[in-house]
Amino acid sequence: MNPDQYRVKPGKSVRLKDWHTDDDGGLSKDEGKDLTDELLEGLAEWQERLFAESKQSLLIVLQARDAGGKDGTVKHVLGALNPNGVRISNFKVPTDEERAHDFLWRVHAQAPRAGQVGVFNRSHYEDVLVTRVEGIIDNRSAKARLKHIGNFEALLTDSGTRILKFYLHVSPDEQRQRLQDRLTDPSKHWKFNPGDLEARAKWDAYTEAYESALGTSTAAAPWYVIPADRKWYRNLLITRIVLNTLKEMNPQYPHVSFDPLEVEIK
Amino acid sequence: MNPDQYRVKPGKSVRLKDWHTDDDGGLSKDEGKDLTDELLEGLAEWQERLFAESKQSLLIVLQARDAGGKDGTVKHVLGALNPNGVRISNFKVPTDEERAHDFLWRVHAQAPRAGQVGVFNRSHYEDVLVTRVEGIIDNRSAKARLKHIGNFEALLTDSGTRILKFYLHVSPDEQRQRLQDRLTDPSKHWKFNPGDLEARAKWDAYTEAYESALGTSTAAAPWYVIPADRKWYRNLLITRIVLNTLKEMNPQYPHVSFDPLEVEIK
Repeated sequence: MNPDQYRVKPGKSVRLKDWHTDDDGGLSKDEGKDLTDELLEGLAEWQERLFAESKQSLLIVLQARDAGGKDGTVKHVLGALNPNGVRISNFKVPTDEERAHDFLWRVHAQAPRAGQVGVFNRSHYEDVLVTRVEGIIDNRSAKARLKHIGNFEALLTDSGTRILKFYLHVSPDEQRQRLQDRLTDPSKHWKFNPGDLEARAKWDAYTEAYESALGTSTAAAPWYVIPADRKWYRNLLITRIVLNTLKEMNPQYPHVSFDPLEVEIK
Repeated sequence: MNPDQYRVKPGKSVRLKDWHTDDDGGLSKDEGKDLTDELLEGLAEWQERLFAESKQSLLIVLQARDAGGKDGTVKHVLGALNPNGVRISNFKVPTDEERAHDFLWRVHAQAPRAGQVGVFNRSHYEDVLVTRVEGIIDNRSAKARLKHIGNFEALLTDSGTRILKFYLHVSPDEQRQRLQDRLTDPSKHWKFNPGDLEARAKWDAYTEAYESALGTSTAAAPWYVIPADRKWYRNLLITRIVLNTLKEMNPQYPHVSFDPLEVEIK
């Protein structure tokens, strides 16, 4: 399992039908889960270093179609981190106040502070996805927004924030199954939104919009197209990529300005 | 182990020296940890119901002396919740902007939304603790602030927020040991703040300030004095109290406005 194969190379255009939704990395589910648990321990250690150092930050962007697995990723992968150093931001339909500003205004306010892991559960990319499919903005506007997004992400990366963007890639069949499960299990009814069926009916239009968004992959803020039909493999891959990235960032416990041996506690 | 024995009864004045720091509930450490793990599973289930219902919210206030175990509680107890429904707020020394407003301004902004568990790691109570001990405000101001705090908490509880306030009660010896550990272990040096020794030297003044603060215990927003010398017992007690409270709040999966059997997914 080489996570790099799922990274969108900068400047490459993406055709989602060429990307797998059901990879398993040659592992069984049990093997995958054990490996994930092991990697999550390492993840927690590196997060503590990031938090202690308090110089760099990590921003994780999660995008997916409905039932694509964003919430599950938050729960199973990011739930293993120390919540003191994590900030989850859920971007919903903009409020009147938010709509009265540029589309990045509310997003910028949620950028992670030094030492923090920020998680965007949906993100500024919604502003070139649903808006575009629904005809709220035209292609020219969408193109302009993608440029603004690139500039915004460059601002963050120039200020010590690493950005990882994950598109959780599920097949139409897998989405049908998951939506069906929400209808069958009474304790999941509340997760079902009839509006999801309208988005599902526009599958191809969303595919096109996602493909444009995935074109914003850069070396400093790459997109990954994560095969997400198998939840355990999705969790494993994301854990691995986040862990590798934290290791690359290589945060260090800070030097202290006093001599610990000289301190006397009365 | 009856958690109610650690609750401060409304209108009762508190003498901290009468409250234990080293209870173990008659359990061994291993028994306590196993029980906590079991309760945490129930906690996660009830949190999901709270989130699904999205009508009520829960606010958990953590206060303690340095090294009293606030961060450990966040990590080990609140870390077991689904992070999508949790918001941790760390209140540090106020910024210039924050100081230019009333002392509850920044706190109010962090109140949990419906469905959410909000955690205040330090809180508005700092404004009647460190400020009072350091003479930044006088006793009359402190008294006025305690009244404002009561009114503020009543506003939240009237709007569907349950409030639980935990004072993590450690002995001077236990604090010494924990501070010493931070000096001995290089990977913990960053947690040591020489200023903590100044606060430690003012132990009794802080005790008095805490005792006043604990006087704000009400039925709807009770204070608990948690024996916190044993980290595992602290975790167990808080888990139990939060779980009991969620069960009392009794959040329900919402009824949906469509007939799940009638929905057809194409």
